[in-house]
Amino acid sequence: MKIIIAGAGAMGSRFGIMLHRGGNDVTLVDGWPAHVDAIRQNGLKANFNGEDITEHIPVMLPSEVKGDTKADLIILFTKSMQLAKMLQDVKPLIAENTKILCLLNGIGHEDTIEKYIPMENIFIGNTMWTAGLVGPGEVKLFGNGSVELQNLGQNQEDAAKNLAKVLSESGLNAKYSDNIHYSIYRKACVNGTMNCLCSILDVNMAEFGATKPAHDIVVTVVNEFAAVAKHEGVDLDIDEVVAHVESCFDPETIGKHYPSMYQDLIKNNRLTEIDYINGAVSRKGKKYQIPTPYCDLLTQLIHCKEDILGAK
Amino acid sequence: MKIIIAGAGAMGSRFGIMLHRGGNDVTLVDGWPAHVDAIRQNGLKANFNGEDITEHIPVMLPSEVKGDTKADLIILFTKSMQLAKMLQDVKPLIAENTKILCLLNGIGHEDTIEKYIPMENIFIGNTMWTAGLVGPGEVKLFGNGSVELQNLGQNQEDAAKNLAKVLSESGLNAKYSDNIHYSIYRKACVNGTMNCLCSILDVNMAEFGATKPAHDIVVTVVNEFAAVAKHEGVDLDIDEVVAHVESCFDPETIGKHYPSMYQDLIKNNRLTEIDYINGAVSRKGKKYQIPTPYCDLLTQLIHCKEDILGAK
Repeated sequence: MKIIIAGAGAMGSRFGIMLHRGGNDVTLVDGWPAHVDAIRQNGLKANFNGEDITEHIPVMLPSEVKGDTKADLIILFTKSMQLAKMLQDVKPLIAENTKILCLLNGIGHEDTIEKYIPMENIFIGNTMWTAGLVGPGEVKLFGNGSVELQNLGQNQEDAAKNLAKVLSESGLNAKYSDNIHYSIYRKACVNGTMNCLCSILDVNMAEFGATKPAHDIVVTVVNEFAAVAKHEGVDLDIDEVVAHVESCFDPETIGKHYPSMYQDLIKNNRLTEIDYINGAVSRKGKKYQIPTPYCDLLTQLIHCKEDILGAK
Repeated sequence: MKIIIAGAGAMGSRFGIMLHRGGNDVTLVDGWPAHVDAIRQNGLKANFNGEDITEHIPVMLPSEVKGDTKADLIILFTKSMQLAKMLQDVKPLIAENTKILCLLNGIGHEDTIEKYIPMENIFIGNTMWTAGLVGPGEVKLFGNGSVELQNLGQNQEDAAKNLAKVLSESGLNAKYSDNIHYSIYRKACVNGTMNCLCSILDVNMAEFGATKPAHDIVVTVVNEFAAVAKHEGVDLDIDEVVAHVESCFDPETIGKHYPSMYQDLIKNNRLTEIDYINGAVSRKGKKYQIPTPYCDLLTQLIHCKEDILGAK
């Protein structure tokens, strides 16, 4: 299968490596020149559960994309704010039957994707795999994970199941979901609390969780996500989601980690994905006339931090 | 006039010094032992508009208060969270005619004070004087200022005007106001935006003002203060108050200063007065069934910071 990984950061590299090793015709597309150069010269290096491996996978910059061979599948793994540009860049690879699988964090990406692809070819999903970028051309891939995915177009359930099969044949442990929006909103609740609050307060998840107001803040934010989700027909189990979010506080498991937004914004002064997490809930809330003041203010405070830190 | 300054920090020291020099019988009461010791041994030292002066003013710890001589006037200048305890401590000094003038920052202090004093003896006010604490027993007093004050009890206008006269005779430039709640809410809007936002974002006022979301955040917070004030019969001119708040952004005037909450919390890891500023609006909002989500979250975030920094 001719597969394009559009956005070959840590997680895109994992999928690229596993699908390549699984016998697929994989090409990586990424906008970071040093990373692309390193992969082109030395292959994509990975510490894969303790074993050092090198995969020689074709790679190109978005500007190098040509439409000679169309893709069967494009897996989107960009940062949210790079999605529209990437779709524009890979447009020459899209044929009538090309399927798009969006595995980005955050919510509402289908609104962007459907400007480029007919709904029946769009699939969205959610992954529990992890991956770390060590440097240009080098990643660290530990542990196990899974993928859930679903068709957005009507009557495309078989295509979705087939897509899950393709991923699973390469070890990616993918399953068809009949309620992917639930999983996406549930995961967005984790990102919509831990990411912004740890970044604003300059703490890890356990430290935030140890503050007295943490629980009330989490409950209010999850309720805003749930109100917007409900308007879209997704009925979140609020108590379960709050408990799921608060499991991140445990210092014995992942509590001592800093979420990705903290790494991006506070450590590396990069622009964040806030507009596709809390900011998306704010926008949807405005559209549906549902008040989302906590998401509004948290989004504003992260944008303040971006301005203050000169994030790029 | 027998005057007690209850809380002789920077601002209490200014009032104590000026009223003492104006010929009043002033006694300072303060809970900081090193400060009390220094004043007792060396007098209260001040750089008073460039001139070094020392005033020998009686001073005591709250635990040393005795009821031998009752006070004509007690001026309250504690931190908000110390108010109730101070009122308890100075109770022996209160006679039937003792007047209380509350000049604390923040809103809603009358709810605490009226537990100790009949309403007709309570006066509240607002000061534009500034003062800085250099160290135990030593303050810095520069520039000019003013005081506005009003009676809370009915038919006490003359007493309020008389109180203003007493302060003015010592150079404190005090005026009777027929709408003190307006001034207090207007000033609270400055504290309710600059204090918490600069502390949360770790910036001075000009740096906060330079962020893109600053204006929208200020407008939303001021609207919450105004909605609660309106319920109490105070009709804030929102545009004027927003402009007043945003005048703090100017780096050519006071923009490069860090507000007092920043000094307390971020520099000195002290507990803040947030519960008497945004937190008071939240409490009043709950009571009046007016939503105040921005004040709610800002209050929670400051309490998170207090927990994280181990503030005392």
